[in-house]
Amino acid sequence: VIIPTGQYQLVTAAMAMTLAAMGGSFVFFVLMREKVALRYRSSIVIAAVVVGIAAFHYSRVLASWADAFQFRDGAYVASGAPFFEAYRYADWLVTVPLLLAQLVLALGMTGPKARSLIVRLSVAAAAMIALGYPGEVINTTSSRLIWGLAGCVPFAYILYVLWVELGRSLLDQTREVALTVSYARWMLLLTWTIYPVSYFVPLLGLDPATTEAVRQVGYSLADLVAKPGYGLLIYRIARLKTEADEAELTSVGDDVRRLAHV
Amino acid sequence: VIIPTGQYQLVTAAMAMTLAAMGGSFVFFVLMREKVALRYRSSIVIAAVVVGIAAFHYSRVLASWADAFQFRDGAYVASGAPFFEAYRYADWLVTVPLLLAQLVLALGMTGPKARSLIVRLSVAAAAMIALGYPGEVINTTSSRLIWGLAGCVPFAYILYVLWVELGRSLLDQTREVALTVSYARWMLLLTWTIYPVSYFVPLLGLDPATTEAVRQVGYSLADLVAKPGYGLLIYRIARLKTEADEAELTSVGDDVRRLAHV
Repeated sequence: VIIPTGQYQLVTAAMAMTLAAMGGSFVFFVLMREKVALRYRSSIVIAAVVVGIAAFHYSRVLASWADAFQFRDGAYVASGAPFFEAYRYADWLVTVPLLLAQLVLALGMTGPKARSLIVRLSVAAAAMIALGYPGEVINTTSSRLIWGLAGCVPFAYILYVLWVELGRSLLDQTREVALTVSYARWMLLLTWTIYPVSYFVPLLGLDPATTEAVRQVGYSLADLVAKPGYGLLIYRIARLKTEADEAELTSVGDDVRRLAHV
Repeated sequence: VIIPTGQYQLVTAAMAMTLAAMGGSFVFFVLMREKVALRYRSSIVIAAVVVGIAAFHYSRVLASWADAFQFRDGAYVASGAPFFEAYRYADWLVTVPLLLAQLVLALGMTGPKARSLIVRLSVAAAAMIALGYPGEVINTTSSRLIWGLAGCVPFAYILYVLWVELGRSLLDQTREVALTVSYARWMLLLTWTIYPVSYFVPLLGLDPATTEAVRQVGYSLADLVAKPGYGLLIYRIARLKTEADEAELTSVGDDVRRLAHV
């Protein structure tokens, strides 16, 4: 495989930018957790954990990408060392269940209902990633189709839980919180459809260099929106819940003061 | 391309100094955030995120610069490995929108008006960077002119928003805050004109070594003023706002004490 310099630089820059954004959002979530009430804080701490883990995996992806190609005669030529796609799957296996848990925790849900939601969403997310991986490794048209479609079954279940089950609990939330949760859900749905597109790009019959460039840039941009971008929506939900709690406390305080004067 | 040792060292030292300043200001912003009230804190946290991301990209720029040249026969000769200008664009694509958001957040603006300002400034900033990149890659006189001038359109829009729209909201601020915002705006305008100058240097017909040296030193110094320097002004705005809030709280406290004595 020979990759033109422009395409190679684009992939490298996309990976580096995503790594930088993961590190930057890690700092943001760690420092801004102070503005989120303790009751919702696990959501923002998990957002920090997710982007921190992703930053580490991206540093490995970037090093593996640099290893897999050598600059020779004006282009980047496969060095023989394989590119470790496996780092991406290792990352997703840990971070995708955590992304779903963030949403439940930002809403301040607790007890058996919240635990059941988190467990079922996590298992489905892990199954979705694990089912996709064999197709990536075997890398034939039929295996990519079979394992890829198998991975869509838990994906459909996740969408069902987010829209139907979680949807019901949104009736108790303020309009602004419900709206932000709705944005977060759509962000998951839209960015998570970039992953299967990148996954199925090898079936389009493009030349190998373009296939690899499109896939890697696609995965990097999807991770950028799905982790730091989604994390910002989680932060906003946690802040809205915190503000609502503070407003309620203030009004309780006013009542107490009024009673004391009577 | 052969770069004389003096010029090569100058570029390397400028990049290293900028990297060090990004790291140094990262520590400053992280630790000094405690002096900024929670209400304005996101501005200083984002200042830390911006210089942190830039520090990472500068470490890549510096490594790529070292790769791209070899010392031979008393001068630095192109090694064949291309210099990754793409890292600069990847950095700007993430950090320039954040620089503009800092200004809005330091003023404590919230609600739909602030969100609209941040979204429009961010989109314009990203468009400005993305439009400049093709001219850098294609690297002919006409492409540099066309894409460079195209990038000036969103730049003009950003200036309009900062001077006219944001200008209006400055009427509610104290004289000192308005003055500091005005400095920050001029700093953006002046440093951001260094970038197009560096961008258009290849059109001047200087020898390739001087062209590269002037460009790289220009970009590095511009980043130094536009990120850590500008961040210090943001810190000052956030501090002034914090002090004004504290003064108001003190005067409320005085009123309460006076009432209690009546």
